[in-house]
Amino acid sequence: MSDSLNELIEEFAQLPGIGRKSAQRLAMYILKLPREEVMKIAQALINVKEKMKYCSKCWNFSETDPCPICSSPRRDKTIICVVEEPSDILAIERTNEYRGLYHVLGGSLSPLEGIGPDDLKVNELLSRIKSDVQEIILALSADIEGEATTIYLSRLLKPLGIRVTRIARGIPIGGDLEFADEATLVRALEARVPI
Amino acid sequence: MSDSLNELIEEFAQLPGIGRKSAQRLAMYILKLPREEVMKIAQALINVKEKMKYCSKCWNFSETDPCPICSSPRRDKTIICVVEEPSDILAIERTNEYRGLYHVLGGSLSPLEGIGPDDLKVNELLSRIKSDVQEIILALSADIEGEATTIYLSRLLKPLGIRVTRIARGIPIGGDLEFADEATLVRALEARVPI
Repeated sequence: MSDSLNELIEEFAQLPGIGRKSAQRLAMYILKLPREEVMKIAQALINVKEKMKYCSKCWNFSETDPCPICSSPRRDKTIICVVEEPSDILAIERTNEYRGLYHVLGGSLSPLEGIGPDDLKVNELLSRIKSDVQEIILALSADIEGEATTIYLSRLLKPLGIRVTRIARGIPIGGDLEFADEATLVRALEARVPI
Repeated sequence: MSDSLNELIEEFAQLPGIGRKSAQRLAMYILKLPREEVMKIAQALINVKEKMKYCSKCWNFSETDPCPICSSPRRDKTIICVVEEPSDILAIERTNEYRGLYHVLGGSLSPLEGIGPDDLKVNELLSRIKSDVQEIILALSADIEGEATTIYLSRLLKPLGIRVTRIARGIPIGGDLEFADEATLVRALEARVPI
C-alpha cells in the first residue's frame, strides 16, 4: 500500500485503545471523508496543542488562565475537589452534580515509581487553602497509590481546621452483590446508611 | 471545559467505532503528547487527503497512477481478484499469500439501494480483460448483495472464456462447529475436500 495511507494507519495504531484493524478502518474512513472534514480534524488536533495551557490555580488544562471553572462566579469557592488527572474532572463534570472547584494533583503518591509529594501539586493545594475554603473532597483512585495519597493529604489538611472528606466506595449502581470483590463489599458494609 | 478540547472530542466522537468516552480519552492523550507528535498526526491526516488518488487501473487508493501493485513487475498479471472496497485489499495483502492484481468494484449490486452495474466499476473490469488475464477471483462479501454481484459477474465473465472462481465459504479457522450458522455449514459441507 501507499506511503501516506500507511503513515496514517501507523499514527492511529499508536493511539490508546486502537488496534491495527481499527487503525486501518479509521484511515479508510478518513480517505472517504470530504477534504474540509479532514482539515477540521487536523486543525482541531493542532488547536488543542497550541491553545491549551494549565490553569495556574487548579492545574486543569485550559485555554484561559484561570480556567472557566476557577473564574466562574457560579461555582462554590468553599469546596475543592482533589483529583489525580484532568480526565477525572471531565468524569465528575458529566454528572452535573458538583458545583465546587477542582485541584489536579497530576498523579498519586507512589514510592515504587519514585513519585513523592514534591512531584504532585500538593504545595499548590496548600497555598489555595484560605479562609473561604471550608471543605476538601478527596476523589482519588481506589488503588493502593490513591488510598495512600488520600491518607497523606487528609493528615496534612485536617490540622488546618478544614473539613476533609473522600468520595464513597461501595457497590456500583447496577452492580451485582454476588460479583463484588471483598474489599468493596467490606467498604460498602462499613459505609452503610440508615433507610 | 474549554473550547478547543471539546472540539477535538467532538471530532473524535464522529469517527466510526469511537464513543464519547473513548473520544475523551483520546483527546486527553493528545493533550499530553509532545507537540511534534501531534503535528505528525495532523500532517498524516492532511497528507492522506492531499496525496491519495484512485489508481485508474484497479481503482484502489494510491499516491501514484498506476498504483504500486498494478505497476509492480513481481505481481502475477494473469490473475485479478475482484473486491468491493479498498479495505478488502488491505485484508488480503495482510495474508502475504496472494501475488496477483486487484480490481475494486466500489460496492456491490443492490436493487433496494438503487446500485446497479453502472454504479460499480464493472465496465472498467471488462476493459481490463485482455489476452493475459487467465483468472478472475471474486472475493465479495458473504451477504445477499455480495452473492448477487458474484453471480452477476460470473455470468458476464464466463462467456469471455476466462476462468472465474470465488473465495471459499466455510467454517472459519478456530471456529466451533456448534456455533456455525446453518448457511455456512451447508456451504462447508458442499465444499468438502478429500483428505
